[in-house]
Amino acid sequence: MAQDQKYLENLRHTTAHLLAAAMVKLHPGAKPTIGPTIENGFYYDFDLPKPISEEDLPKIEAEMKTLLKYWNNVEQREVSPEEAMMFSDNPYKLELIEELIKVKEPITVVKTGDFEDLCRGGHAQNPREEIRAFKLLSVAGAYWRGDEKNKMLTRIYGTAFPSQKELDDYLNMLEEAKKRDHRKIGQDLGLYIFSDLVGKGLPLFTAKGATIRRELERFVVDEELKRGYEHVVTPPLAKTDLYRVSGHYPYYKETMYPPMKIEEDELILRPMSCPHHFMLYASKSRSYKELPIKIAELVDLYRYEKSGELSGLTRVRTFCLADSHIFCTPDQAKQVVLEVLELINYANGVLGFVKGKDYTYRLSLGDRTDEKKYYKDEDSWDEAEKILREVLTEANESFYEAKNEAAFYGPKIDVQMKTVRGSEETAFTVQYDFVLPKRFDLKYIDKDSKGKQPVVIHRSSIGAIERTMAFMIEKYAGAFPVWLSPVQVQIIPITDRNIKYGQKVLEQLKNSGIRVELDDRSETMQSKIRDAQIQKIPYMLIIGDREEKEGKVAVRTREGKDLGAMKLEEFIDRIKKDIETKRIELGS
Amino acid sequence: MAQDQKYLENLRHTTAHLLAAAMVKLHPGAKPTIGPTIENGFYYDFDLPKPISEEDLPKIEAEMKTLLKYWNNVEQREVSPEEAMMFSDNPYKLELIEELIKVKEPITVVKTGDFEDLCRGGHAQNPREEIRAFKLLSVAGAYWRGDEKNKMLTRIYGTAFPSQKELDDYLNMLEEAKKRDHRKIGQDLGLYIFSDLVGKGLPLFTAKGATIRRELERFVVDEELKRGYEHVVTPPLAKTDLYRVSGHYPYYKETMYPPMKIEEDELILRPMSCPHHFMLYASKSRSYKELPIKIAELVDLYRYEKSGELSGLTRVRTFCLADSHIFCTPDQAKQVVLEVLELINYANGVLGFVKGKDYTYRLSLGDRTDEKKYYKDEDSWDEAEKILREVLTEANESFYEAKNEAAFYGPKIDVQMKTVRGSEETAFTVQYDFVLPKRFDLKYIDKDSKGKQPVVIHRSSIGAIERTMAFMIEKYAGAFPVWLSPVQVQIIPITDRNIKYGQKVLEQLKNSGIRVELDDRSETMQSKIRDAQIQKIPYMLIIGDREEKEGKVAVRTREGKDLGAMKLEEFIDRIKKDIETKRIELGS
Repeated sequence: MAQDQKYLENLRHTTAHLLAAAMVKLHPGAKPTIGPTIENGFYYDFDLPKPISEEDLPKIEAEMKTLLKYWNNVEQREVSPEEAMMFSDNPYKLELIEELIKVKEPITVVKTGDFEDLCRGGHAQNPREEIRAFKLLSVAGAYWRGDEKNKMLTRIYGTAFPSQKELDDYLNMLEEAKKRDHRKIGQDLGLYIFSDLVGKGLPLFTAKGATIRRELERFVVDEELKRGYEHVVTPPLAKTDLYRVSGHYPYYKETMYPPMKIEEDELILRPMSCPHHFMLYASKSRSYKELPIKIAELVDLYRYEKSGELSGLTRVRTFCLADSHIFCTPDQAKQVVLEVLELINYANGVLGFVKGKDYTYRLSLGDRTDEKKYYKDEDSWDEAEKILREVLTEANESFYEAKNEAAFYGPKIDVQMKTVRGSEETAFTVQYDFVLPKRFDLKYIDKDSKGKQPVVIHRSSIGAIERTMAFMIEKYAGAFPVWLSPVQVQIIPITDRNIKYGQKVLEQLKNSGIRVELDDRSETMQSKIRDAQIQKIPYMLIIGDREEKEGKVAVRTREGKDLGAMKLEEFIDRIKKDIETKRIELGS
Repeated sequence: MAQDQKYLENLRHTTAHLLAAAMVKLHPGAKPTIGPTIENGFYYDFDLPKPISEEDLPKIEAEMKTLLKYWNNVEQREVSPEEAMMFSDNPYKLELIEELIKVKEPITVVKTGDFEDLCRGGHAQNPREEIRAFKLLSVAGAYWRGDEKNKMLTRIYGTAFPSQKELDDYLNMLEEAKKRDHRKIGQDLGLYIFSDLVGKGLPLFTAKGATIRRELERFVVDEELKRGYEHVVTPPLAKTDLYRVSGHYPYYKETMYPPMKIEEDELILRPMSCPHHFMLYASKSRSYKELPIKIAELVDLYRYEKSGELSGLTRVRTFCLADSHIFCTPDQAKQVVLEVLELINYANGVLGFVKGKDYTYRLSLGDRTDEKKYYKDEDSWDEAEKILREVLTEANESFYEAKNEAAFYGPKIDVQMKTVRGSEETAFTVQYDFVLPKRFDLKYIDKDSKGKQPVVIHRSSIGAIERTMAFMIEKYAGAFPVWLSPVQVQIIPITDRNIKYGQKVLEQLKNSGIRVELDDRSETMQSKIRDAQIQKIPYMLIIGDREEKEGKVAVRTREGKDLGAMKLEEFIDRIKKDIETKRIELGS
């Protein structure tokens, strides 16, 4: 970890203590439990005698500021089990202390000002000097130790920075991220809904949301077909036995849906598609001449996520992955991965994701000492890691390495997407697999007529359609490139007498395959324009008497740019170019 | 039933008795159970002391012919329970007799020649004169009364006709149907596979099969979008509660997959999509101005079929239906159904299905006296049946009516597809639903600002993709129209020195978006042509030295027609026209 990062974490950790000190003071009987730092801030969980809301936060902040004046040092010391009984009125701390005693870890206590807390340390040296800017952000419920069987506690989120400027920048970014939150925009633009009767984490895409999906799906399928992928269609369920052979079951049971008994069989919704594609590969004899064989599919996958972890389109209980499994000889693996990276860079570029800014590559390695988590085969791990590292280097990709992040069957390259909230998420991966081909006894007939085992590269190209949509909604704040916009053109007649001409324009655009709507409501032009802008419709065609007379349309963009009056044909040519070239910005 | 049909059934029923008489004679100890007529023939199930195979059939036929000489009349009489004990050594007949006694039905026995059988009657008057042509067709296993807990019996299938000519025609048709069986062609052309590890009734489409699917799916989606349908995407599962509200659960429980418990919810794979689309309709307020709203989707549906009933792509455990629910005012219903029939006729015409020959319409009505099966509402049934009948009449569609075939929520128009085996199957339906909108409390705001209940038309346009593929495979015997052919062009170099030119041709065709393969194996031209013909590839481009020199290709069709040498560009124009116009026959 960088020194700056460590400094920041210490700062935030101490601020969490400061929060606890203020809470204990303001709410007698409040029991602090744990208060760790997290990405971009910290939280602290309390068992409170009565609930609080976000309206209470300013008062707590004020108390923190008052206390901070006296926090000019931090003392950490080890205490005996007996001395630790100073926390005897706090059952949460007692539970933690008991565990420390059990595993024979030292019990340490940190004191700042009058406030003492059970703590492993990692603090600012002089809080009064260093904590120059902090902010409490929100209040939420959280179960003690994340277990829903335990009591629900009150969690307060906050953050701290070494300067007010940095805090302000962060809060601005949060404010901007809130506006771009795909859950908010998704609702504002009517892209998808959730239904209590259908169930949690199961989005229903409206015609508008489904249009974006369809465009994304056709784009990725067509692009992959051009590149020699064979797109197949396999069922999203199989006998549990299939996952016993693959080794996913029962180890991955936690993230799988429960099995269904059908006659003598036990069926299960699939969490991944590799075994299905292996069945297709193995359904006939394969020669080295045919390799690499690239089996691809838009696969519906089912993973069980706890309801507390579900979030908009990012964390759902079923999603559609642009998936592929490439069967190749070990010699071909490097070239195959290289071509996969090319496709990823190309496809993500088309979607407008900029490498280095919106996404980066991470090389995820296994931990050879952890034989439970990783398949044991030193040579294969060496070879696989070397190949992935070489590909990234030779392709001139900038990347970083992460330990203990590999799949159980081999190392992988992760596509790390940067979110509008400033955090990094693994969008999808490219995996080198030398284990599953063995488990399924996959073979190809080599030049010497001998059956040999292929390597399998598991990869996506644009990830899960739902998550990619979420990333894109946030990136574009709903103002999608024209080819993805659910409605590409809004026709706005100035008066009711222009509606008839509007319908003619409508028909002509429809016949050109353009997604268009006519706003024939009895509203003012201004309010129609405003509504179209709120809907982020790329182009508005304003038509009044003059446009009608001249057979023209006055073109306006959603950004409010006036492109002037032009012949309808001219506009059609222009927007068709936007669509065909999948242009990110509107043509000018 | 037509008089001819009744005559034919009697004939076949008597032939079934004749079979039983021969079996008892040839296989002492054989116990006849039941022997009904079925479409195009009959069967008889026997409990046999030792198994028989199809090789035994000629001997049985010979014995039947011998016996037939003495079968010049049929006697039917009622017997007392005591007299019925003549069947005391046959536990199957005894079971049937006991049931007759229980429900107080008469016990009747039919005697022909020396052979007496428990039988309700319906026979030829003079078997010796009337049974002029019969044939035993196959042997299969079948559980007593279709229940797998019972003993497995031996079933012999056969048929009979009033003349040898009719029998021969029928056998020829069967022979032809066998060649066209989609299960055979599907395997020969490598369109899909089944996998024991994946499970029964769950086809995996290869790249070739998936290509046909994709073309069909894009065709139907694009055509529906053009016609104002809103294509959505909804998840293929939901809480069981959704189907409790709809009324499908627990009544349709038999055909549904078992529920899955996820946290506090119970989820179930959906057998139909109406409730999901209702959730989208109900997610916002709807005005009469917006109606009709046509929500459409390619929906994955899951229906539990007994393994014994599974068959190729026709009966599967998951399928993808081109589905839609149209929400309209009662006044609009007629026009809506009219437009649906137009779409069905258009779309099926594009696929090459000829109305009157390949498919017909059936108006399926409810049985008002059956209040268990049909929702009780005399007026609505009257109105709905009237509307569907009027639409069919006004559209000049020829149709027939069938009683007791409606959905529980209203009458429907069935698209009856004629199979290559001469039988008729319901491919898909158009349903008039006045019940579910009430159950889900669907509303639209009418002109008078009051909330009113819409009618829902449930409809498909081309049916389930899997079944439609099965129908098409059989109709075309695998020789699909060019736009649907997985490989549209096979390039066949005459010698190895023409391979390089072949690759150039390959690239050019690929760049034109044509699905093409190059046969660069070291085989003779003749054998390459034969293989391409077996694969039903529409066009072969033969290239030798002369073609290479002149920059031409020699074009041959899969039917063996020689179209001569032409410039590659000329061929590309030609095949592109085949594809764009979705021409059924190859252009000439």
